[in-house]
Amino acid sequence: MNLQKTQGAASVSFGKPVYIQSAASIAGKKEGEGPLGSCFDMICEDPLFGTDTWEAAESTMQKEAATLAIGKAGLKPEEIRMVFAGDLLAQSIASSFGIAEMGIPFYGLYGACSTMGESLSLGSMAVAAGYGEHILCATSSHFASAEKEFRYPLGYGCQRPLSATWTVTGSGACVIGSQPPSFPSSGDAIPLRLENSCAAITEITTGKIIDYGFKDSLNMGGCMAPAACDTIYQHLYDFGRSPSDYDAIITGDLGLVGQKILLDLLSEKNIDISSVHQDCGLLIFDNSTQDTHSGGSGCGCAATVLCAYLLPKVIAGEWKRILFVPTGAMLSKVSFNEGDPVSGIAHAIVIEQVTVS
Amino acid sequence: MNLQKTQGAASVSFGKPVYIQSAASIAGKKEGEGPLGSCFDMICEDPLFGTDTWEAAESTMQKEAATLAIGKAGLKPEEIRMVFAGDLLAQSIASSFGIAEMGIPFYGLYGACSTMGESLSLGSMAVAAGYGEHILCATSSHFASAEKEFRYPLGYGCQRPLSATWTVTGSGACVIGSQPPSFPSSGDAIPLRLENSCAAITEITTGKIIDYGFKDSLNMGGCMAPAACDTIYQHLYDFGRSPSDYDAIITGDLGLVGQKILLDLLSEKNIDISSVHQDCGLLIFDNSTQDTHSGGSGCGCAATVLCAYLLPKVIAGEWKRILFVPTGAMLSKVSFNEGDPVSGIAHAIVIEQVTVS
Repeated sequence: MNLQKTQGAASVSFGKPVYIQSAASIAGKKEGEGPLGSCFDMICEDPLFGTDTWEAAESTMQKEAATLAIGKAGLKPEEIRMVFAGDLLAQSIASSFGIAEMGIPFYGLYGACSTMGESLSLGSMAVAAGYGEHILCATSSHFASAEKEFRYPLGYGCQRPLSATWTVTGSGACVIGSQPPSFPSSGDAIPLRLENSCAAITEITTGKIIDYGFKDSLNMGGCMAPAACDTIYQHLYDFGRSPSDYDAIITGDLGLVGQKILLDLLSEKNIDISSVHQDCGLLIFDNSTQDTHSGGSGCGCAATVLCAYLLPKVIAGEWKRILFVPTGAMLSKVSFNEGDPVSGIAHAIVIEQVTVS
Repeated sequence: MNLQKTQGAASVSFGKPVYIQSAASIAGKKEGEGPLGSCFDMICEDPLFGTDTWEAAESTMQKEAATLAIGKAGLKPEEIRMVFAGDLLAQSIASSFGIAEMGIPFYGLYGACSTMGESLSLGSMAVAAGYGEHILCATSSHFASAEKEFRYPLGYGCQRPLSATWTVTGSGACVIGSQPPSFPSSGDAIPLRLENSCAAITEITTGKIIDYGFKDSLNMGGCMAPAACDTIYQHLYDFGRSPSDYDAIITGDLGLVGQKILLDLLSEKNIDISSVHQDCGLLIFDNSTQDTHSGGSGCGCAATVLCAYLLPKVIAGEWKRILFVPTGAMLSKVSFNEGDPVSGIAHAIVIEQVTVS
């Protein structure tokens, strides 16, 4: 391994842990039938979530996930100092309609499928600086609203190439703060604290937009892999670490195709993460039976896998330190139709098991 | 005046000033012909900014404004620790294509026309917490890309109601940091420092999404006025101040219609800001000769007026303390077509003249 600085540092190490006080995940039917089905807090069988449109469905799902996370932390919306949220839809309407009614000071984000990373990055900086006791970080995606936003009407029944990913219908939300979570009530499916062990964000690395000139919006993994490579490399450089310092390095939604490219790109830099690499898009679906091609994607992919599967492993001490790297592809249907490339971004979050008294 | 707390505090007061180290503005031809024409750093006569599409034009403009701001601060892009940027277009493509090439750690935002407020809000929190020496805050809007995004193709020549605003073609960018700006070189049109006086951000109030159920996307001022009212009210409450504590309270792009509603709404709360209220949308165009109906709007409206007109007044001491309140309307063409309301958000930034040795 031979790390060379490419540009200025992009990381922050927090003096004291930013605790994950609660986490909640809501997923759709298909996600509920996947390998992590038993881990989600809630699975909604109705893809419209009781509403009339795909967009309202996604808003409702995000609001429910946020409400659940706030409730699990034993809080009321008015005790949340600020929220960082975004989604894939144009003008981030899933978030602005979803969380709007809660009356919480709101910072709207756009980081494509990296949004959970962006929101935790900004949220943890705000907590560490003392700007709020409780900060909500949330995002969502919905298969049908995303297909409508970026690709073809569902009714066309278009075929998808094997490099394509399947947008996860799901929403994840975390409340983070400067104090550790309280002990769970007995009804909590996934406790955020086990005796004196919980999960905390200790470091972040902010992503840069990386453009390799790829133009295939049905190969998002390929478009995002260079950004994941850049952020992971920058992170290891900034902290002088090697992949073995992490029990897992988990990208957001590179899928099978993107994973291979990421491993190849890092290998060119003499970095081998193959033994610790996982990808939320490969964890959430069973590719052999669920027909999801390259894997899962969408803001909700990394967010629900974090809340439902990664955090419990950290809290239980199965993993002591992980690098969570949600990845996003920067494009719109207009930019795609105008022939622009699809660039990528990835934000890295270090989550560690911490001991509290 | 009778302030009553509505919900938890939404403001931060920084222990020491967050200095505005540089500011740059680029505007289009129509804006250049308006009352502030002589104040902009650059006016581009070509609405396509030398590109082939409206979206590329906006990206180019935003990149040029950012480059100009970085240069004015005597910096190189690699010395910028992070950037907060966004725009009106779906998936914020003007920003992701505009600033991407600079290789700066990037946080993408969506706050509609309030984006300059959101970026300065987050940027100043990051500076005050010591996360970076130099942070770039930028946004843009373009009349033609915005009409394409939200309304009708320009070629239709649609009539617009008098409540409609005219999206500003313009981009503003600021570099902020913990140290005061250096003395300007003699060629600077607008010095960011005069002897030992400069401008700094001292306080912020984060906006909430406020939805009064308005559905008229051709009356954005009306849709955003309740949010401006909420943020101004919350700000005055949080700091125990009255409007007379400010030399000016400047909203983003309420226009004539929104201004009247804002003054009425605040009046219902026994707050009278009429003697100090200004609106960037009313400052940037001459309504009597430029056919802009209710006024200017767009992310670029508040951003260019701030950089070109407001900051110089603060630096020169004509104003000692102002409240800058960019306003945004939360909608997409999908949400509009599905009959959803247009909610609003407004972020408040206190900018003061400060003395440095």
